[in-house]
Amino acid sequence: MIYFDNSATTKPYLEVLATFRQVSERYYGNPSSIHRIGCDSERLLTQAKKQAAQLLNVEESEIIFTSGGTEGNNLAVKGIALQHQQRGKHIITTSIEHPSVKEACKSLESLGFNVTYLPVDQNGQVNVQDIADAITEDTILISVMHVNNELGTIQPIEEIGEIANKYPKLFFHVDYVQGLGKVPLDFNKAHIDLCTMSGHKIHGLNGTGMLYIKKGTSIFPLLHGGSQELSYRAGTENLAGSVSMVKALRIILDKQRTHHHHLQHLNGQLRSELRQIEGVYINSPEDAAPHILNISLPGFKPEVVIHALGERDIFVSTKSACSSKNAGESSVLEACNIGFKRSLSAIRISLSHHNTEEEVDTFVNVLKEVMNQLSEVMG
Amino acid sequence: MIYFDNSATTKPYLEVLATFRQVSERYYGNPSSIHRIGCDSERLLTQAKKQAAQLLNVEESEIIFTSGGTEGNNLAVKGIALQHQQRGKHIITTSIEHPSVKEACKSLESLGFNVTYLPVDQNGQVNVQDIADAITEDTILISVMHVNNELGTIQPIEEIGEIANKYPKLFFHVDYVQGLGKVPLDFNKAHIDLCTMSGHKIHGLNGTGMLYIKKGTSIFPLLHGGSQELSYRAGTENLAGSVSMVKALRIILDKQRTHHHHLQHLNGQLRSELRQIEGVYINSPEDAAPHILNISLPGFKPEVVIHALGERDIFVSTKSACSSKNAGESSVLEACNIGFKRSLSAIRISLSHHNTEEEVDTFVNVLKEVMNQLSEVMG
Ligand SMILES: Cc1ncc(COP(=O)(O)O)c(C=O)c1O
Ligand SMILES: Cc1ncc(COP(=O)(O)O)c(C=O)c1O
Repeated sequence: MIYFDNSATTKPYLEVLATFRQVSERYYGNPSSIHRIGCDSERLLTQAKKQAAQLLNVEESEIIFTSGGTEGNNLAVKGIALQHQQRGKHIITTSIEHPSVKEACKSLESLGFNVTYLPVDQNGQVNVQDIADAITEDTILISVMHVNNELGTIQPIEEIGEIANKYPKLFFHVDYVQGLGKVPLDFNKAHIDLCTMSGHKIHGLNGTGMLYIKKGTSIFPLLHGGSQELSYRAGTENLAGSVSMVKALRIILDKQRTHHHHLQHLNGQLRSELRQIEGVYINSPEDAAPHILNISLPGFKPEVVIHALGERDIFVSTKSACSSKNAGESSVLEACNIGFKRSLSAIRISLSHHNTEEEVDTFVNVLKEVMNQLSEVMG
Repeated sequence: MIYFDNSATTKPYLEVLATFRQVSERYYGNPSSIHRIGCDSERLLTQAKKQAAQLLNVEESEIIFTSGGTEGNNLAVKGIALQHQQRGKHIITTSIEHPSVKEACKSLESLGFNVTYLPVDQNGQVNVQDIADAITEDTILISVMHVNNELGTIQPIEEIGEIANKYPKLFFHVDYVQGLGKVPLDFNKAHIDLCTMSGHKIHGLNGTGMLYIKKGTSIFPLLHGGSQELSYRAGTENLAGSVSMVKALRIILDKQRTHHHHLQHLNGQLRSELRQIEGVYINSPEDAAPHILNISLPGFKPEVVIHALGERDIFVSTKSACSSKNAGESSVLEACNIGFKRSLSAIRISLSHHNTEEEVDTFVNVLKEVMNQLSEVMG
């Protein structure tokens, strides 16, 4: 089996699963209980947070645990909007954000907010000057993703942070779900106020995630209740999930450099082999994140290609998993203006550091076969 | 060790943990991916939901998986409020709801909603007539918990449902977190529109939960994004968590009758033994849920008692875990008007079906010892 759909979700590390089980069995106390069993749980939670903060080079009080990337993005975007609406009701984002940012923004429009969705170029890149120009008196939030989940395009986060930083009233949120563990990002240097991470994209577990909230940034919680997570996210803590998330984070960051090198190598191999197939277009820019390669096969229906590859035990995807069930053009590629034919026939290959050169070879050969067979059927 | 803090959180069943691990290892595909690995995951998710629906005697499309009780309560309360605010901005609830309902209501007040917090009697019971009287043209939601987490008091949910049902504009939400698996509740018969459940209170895992949303009830999502969970709760599904939650639900409901009988028996034993200790007051009403017994030891600081019991490996709590770190009177007992001395010295014993007669005996004997020792120190 060749699993090339790692941007949809990754297989959890066995160590992560083992950690989850151990913590669930041994530390079942509620961290808010004042007896010893509760205190043991609380201590472990604090340790996990401390370790996460160290790994990300931020402060312990700047990390909260969430249930995933979608919650992190919603909490950041709505949390800033609802909390700071008396200062202004304008938000700037791009037209290729993940649905969890885009739909959160749309929901805010229905509550009276104003959102600017900036265009991107053919590579999926937003223009930094466009962002600067879009800022008004009313702007309270800029939300831009780091690595795009369909193309792998890396946005100029540090430059955008420079601009955001000139406006003290303005918060800067970054969706770092696809970048984490693959493309380094310095939250402080990039003047980021809020940064979303997700466990299951880094071989952690589903239902786990983290949101970085810079000291001094206040948000309106989505989940009110007890005073867990500095009152930003109430609810009995998912201790085992949080500890397992930090475990995944440690593994992925420890090996980030080696993984990056390996992924870069596989990406180069993929590109050079795919360039030799007639009718294959590479949509991801040269300097994209190494684990995502988006290609188009004009004339082929991606669902059919995916099905045929699946029969040979190779798993890739069309667009993002979140929108894969709505057939039709990818809204990300549509925004890139690469033409209807290409944006209707796109396939995303997304790698993990577990993938190998042999898998890439096999994939390319099978893809050729599939294209030939389908051409015959169609022709 | 005697663990009598099961209303704070329970120890997960080993079968639940095993299910979680198996699903995480074998079904790591994203249920939204259109390839076989994704479809396998989606099928399992659908099966789990079907089973949950059967167990609860509702329809499959009426269940969504959440990250826990706090999320369920917030989603129900804010989801109805934000979605139906043009119809009215008035909410009715009680003064002894869990913080995840109470604070959600307060947060809505800050957004311009009007909330009536109805009083309760000395048993913690709300008056059904008070609810009927509080309804106005503007009322869109009644939110009342089933079993109170500090006292065990059971609210007259069916009678309240009768009233709510007379007003077609009005939604009825029930926090069923403490009742699930212990005190049966027929969602249909009680005319419930939304009902919150949590995994870790029924020997399931933290970070898991379910919200029942009656067909035809529309809510404003807290998490926007992909179209998971009928678009009411976006985000890559926590498949292993959801399947494990249904596993816990099945076990707890299968054995509900036996457990209830056993808990009732332990509760009776506790009451009769405790009544023989001078200076111990029982706060929970006679007809409370069998797993929760709230007592007061006027003159004793509950933190000190809990600490002394903890040194003898017995674990109980003061008030709810969520508010246990704010010293002082329990707001639930305060609302019951049982007097300052009693509400300042309350201890909650919360049982699981794993607890035994011997544990109850030991607990009562140790409590006597502790009270004697502390009296000597204080005297
Ligand atoms: C860029 C990006 N942001 C956010 C998300 C949402 O994360 P999660 O699946 O943890 O909800 C995803 C993945 O679906 C993503 O690719
Ligand atoms: C009555 C009640 N409702 C809601 C909750 C919140 O549930 P969770 O801990 O799953 O967030 C709790 C427990 O803390 C509870 O006892």
